[in-house]
Amino acid sequence: MQPPRFDLAGLADRFGLELRGDGGTLIEGVGTLAGARAGQLGFLANPRYRAELAGTAASAVVVSAQDAADCPVPCLVAKSPYVAFAKIAALFEPVPAAAPGVHASAAIDPSAHVDPAAQVGPFCSIGARSRIGAGAVLGPGCVVGDDCEVGPGSVLVARVTLVARVRLGARVRVHTGAVLGADGFGLAMDGGHWIKVPQLGGVVVGDDCEIGANTCIDRGAIEDTVLEQDVRLDNLIQIGHNVRIGAHSALAGCVAVAGSARIGAYCLVGGGAGIAGHLEICDRVTVTAMSLVTQSITAPGEYSSGMPVQESRLWRRNGARFRQLDQLARKIGALSKD
Amino acid sequence: MQPPRFDLAGLADRFGLELRGDGGTLIEGVGTLAGARAGQLGFLANPRYRAELAGTAASAVVVSAQDAADCPVPCLVAKSPYVAFAKIAALFEPVPAAAPGVHASAAIDPSAHVDPAAQVGPFCSIGARSRIGAGAVLGPGCVVGDDCEVGPGSVLVARVTLVARVRLGARVRVHTGAVLGADGFGLAMDGGHWIKVPQLGGVVVGDDCEIGANTCIDRGAIEDTVLEQDVRLDNLIQIGHNVRIGAHSALAGCVAVAGSARIGAYCLVGGGAGIAGHLEICDRVTVTAMSLVTQSITAPGEYSSGMPVQESRLWRRNGARFRQLDQLARKIGALSKD
Amino acid sequence: MQPPRFDLAGLADRFGLELRGDGGTLIEGVGTLAGARAGQLGFLANPRYRAELAGTAASAVVVSAQDAADCPVPCLVAKSPYVAFAKIAALFEPVPAAAPGVHASAAIDPSAHVDPAAQVGPFCSIGARSRIGAGAVLGPGCVVGDDCEVGPGSVLVARVTLVARVRLGARVRVHTGAVLGADGFGLAMDGGHWIKVPQLGGVVVGDDCEIGANTCIDRGAIEDTVLEQDVRLDNLIQIGHNVRIGAHSALAGCVAVAGSARIGAYCLVGGGAGIAGHLEICDRVTVTAMSLVTQSITAPGEYSSGMPVQESRLWRRNGARFRQLDQLARKIGALSKD
Repeated sequence: MQPPRFDLAGLADRFGLELRGDGGTLIEGVGTLAGARAGQLGFLANPRYRAELAGTAASAVVVSAQDAADCPVPCLVAKSPYVAFAKIAALFEPVPAAAPGVHASAAIDPSAHVDPAAQVGPFCSIGARSRIGAGAVLGPGCVVGDDCEVGPGSVLVARVTLVARVRLGARVRVHTGAVLGADGFGLAMDGGHWIKVPQLGGVVVGDDCEIGANTCIDRGAIEDTVLEQDVRLDNLIQIGHNVRIGAHSALAGCVAVAGSARIGAYCLVGGGAGIAGHLEICDRVTVTAMSLVTQSITAPGEYSSGMPVQESRLWRRNGARFRQLDQLARKIGALSKD
Repeated sequence: MQPPRFDLAGLADRFGLELRGDGGTLIEGVGTLAGARAGQLGFLANPRYRAELAGTAASAVVVSAQDAADCPVPCLVAKSPYVAFAKIAALFEPVPAAAPGVHASAAIDPSAHVDPAAQVGPFCSIGARSRIGAGAVLGPGCVVGDDCEVGPGSVLVARVTLVARVRLGARVRVHTGAVLGADGFGLAMDGGHWIKVPQLGGVVVGDDCEIGANTCIDRGAIEDTVLEQDVRLDNLIQIGHNVRIGAHSALAGCVAVAGSARIGAYCLVGGGAGIAGHLEICDRVTVTAMSLVTQSITAPGEYSSGMPVQESRLWRRNGARFRQLDQLARKIGALSKD
Repeated sequence: MQPPRFDLAGLADRFGLELRGDGGTLIEGVGTLAGARAGQLGFLANPRYRAELAGTAASAVVVSAQDAADCPVPCLVAKSPYVAFAKIAALFEPVPAAAPGVHASAAIDPSAHVDPAAQVGPFCSIGARSRIGAGAVLGPGCVVGDDCEVGPGSVLVARVTLVARVRLGARVRVHTGAVLGADGFGLAMDGGHWIKVPQLGGVVVGDDCEIGANTCIDRGAIEDTVLEQDVRLDNLIQIGHNVRIGAHSALAGCVAVAGSARIGAYCLVGGGAGIAGHLEICDRVTVTAMSLVTQSITAPGEYSSGMPVQESRLWRRNGARFRQLDQLARKIGALSKD
């Protein structure tokens, strides 16, 4: 495999970027400012790394207009260097060859329909009445249960399970180990024993969503659990039954969303955050890492309750005081009145 | 498939509920108060949804005695509407046809025993000396290691792994991706390197337990990790080695329980909570979401340490003060003495 | 299978321990102080269990020098009783028979190389240009993607996936359901839609590492995600792209480490802790359970922010005060100036 090669002027032209310096500079890969070698294109998007610009060994760099003057090598000036870099880097991504067809080992229910332009890998099984669209790819070991749909161009990387009644739109990407459509956690206490509340709904995932590795999205109790289009979930996330997540929202790793919560569009949720059930978060809310949302949020903005570390001996002292904070506050109230 | 259909009088009779209104009302599905169509049965269990009762399009509703008067349509009056609804909804649950027998692709050790009335799906493997009981179901891609037992009527939905020495009772339900019996996290530092502490125990899961998707239950170091009967675990939960969980306890998603903790019966643990190792929690304790238990709890009741979000700019200010709370408290002490 | 049997003098000799009492005592298994039967060897490492020493039914016990005098039965005196016990217990661990060779069902790319002394179980698939070393074991259902390497003696227990460009050193142990090399969570907002930042790097795992069940380690965006040698990860951990973890560090269950964080050597991270991205933690740092690290840590020591539970009614009162802590502190400041 010959790696691809582009000249800088061509890249500027292709992605609508301003070229500064030698347009004939050849680019045959991408790198970080600190790690790039000659022949590679670096980028400066996060100001944290600005100090690395001067010493970069990259042959060219993608920068913003305000950083361009400090760039020691030819550069491509972009409104959003990160977006421009992402698009250019995609040229260098190894893409496994498409191989439409069904692997001989796959176990497919006779009532299922697999488009001839779909690819079904080894050890996959597909249940009754399920449909796999054109250009869809099921990597090794995927399990698609009954009454599921995988939209055109969607990819289940490997060992993905759609348990039952899961409908993926177009160009959805589901990473390894993710489980969509498992029973929601519905229990009712009946005479000292739990009885299981049937989970009759499904999961609907909009176009262009991405679901991380080992993430779980339960199917709804009655109605469906819904991800609108372009929702992005990182790894090891738990989405309870009947949750609804608005378009273009992104949740970082290890977030847990309890049943029937509704999250708006363009929300960002930091890693390890928790969102209680039966509440509503409006559009354009950011929740920072390891925060806990227990009530509806009705105004856009940033919300937090994650507490950063201190040396343990200080933390323990402060924590002990916290446990008497109400008493302390009453004492202050009394003093104020003196 | 013709969907099932029942009249309201028949349902009242079958589940011991009080009928109010036309007993001939035909029910052919269930729904939420807001979402139900004609022909469907709704329910009102969570007071949060009471306002939706008046406008429901459901043909009938399951309600408590105090809500019955406000119900605009025929109703079934239940002591616990949620329990009654769960039982009725089960009539409408699509149940995949049982298909006893072993799929041709399954890899089964000659010393394993699979009951003729069990079902083993494609791409399953079963190790030495393991036993699969009557009516048990192993969905696609399950791995049962050596010396395991799957009790009668238990279901491993798909891609479940019982690593070694895992014994499931009767009617246990294990969801996709769960891993029971992986090595506990036992390490000892020896001259600057970790050495692995052998994990010689197993996992014992009582009758009627349910284990969520991608949940992990490690096997014991010496003795077994134990779930008593009717324990309910949601998704993405971590249960360390030698943990013991009492009967009828339920843990929500993303809870982590460290090694050798003992949780009593009828406990409820909220999502994302953490329970440290080598401690004991008595019966009937509730721990709310994202709380951390670091010491034994000896009295029933509800315990918390999860902090709800504030706007980040307020949160950061309060958090900064928290880090000096001990100093603040000393200052107050001094003022009080003035 | 005849269980192995050793006399105490032999064990003392083999592991360099001091023998006190009858060296002819026969040991045919290990147990806890409380649970051991005659014929078994107990151990006392955690002072929490010291009270159980007097009443143990074990035939012998591994103890420290200071506990030896109180031991009612023959004992082996060790500098670190836990390390000594771990080594002895390994003698009693059932080890499945090695069975080199490739299962007939495995799907292996013609360009992959599997050492003849490696073992590849049923329903495994191995991608293009990947290499499986001598003595390596792939349990049932493992997926090794393109351009991966499994070093000599490494074990993928079952249903492990190496997605792409994952290189494991020697004697690495990866537990069931773990996913190494999934796409890092790289997104850029472009005109109201997310675009995916290609993840061109890989994952490098040093010798003697252990990766827990259902743990995820994403591959790097440009450079690699790296675990140095002897790193130990428990279950359900999330390691973001381009993270680097130093040698001999150990992370407990459900920890989340965001992208480009660097953790030093000999660090310990408690369960459920979160570590933000683009920061550095120096060597020999301990972070306790459910703590959140948002800034670099430059001094060794123990750091915390996990808050232990209180009765909920007290907790709620203190929490309410916390939300006005800054105001409270200002009031105190004013009082002090009076």
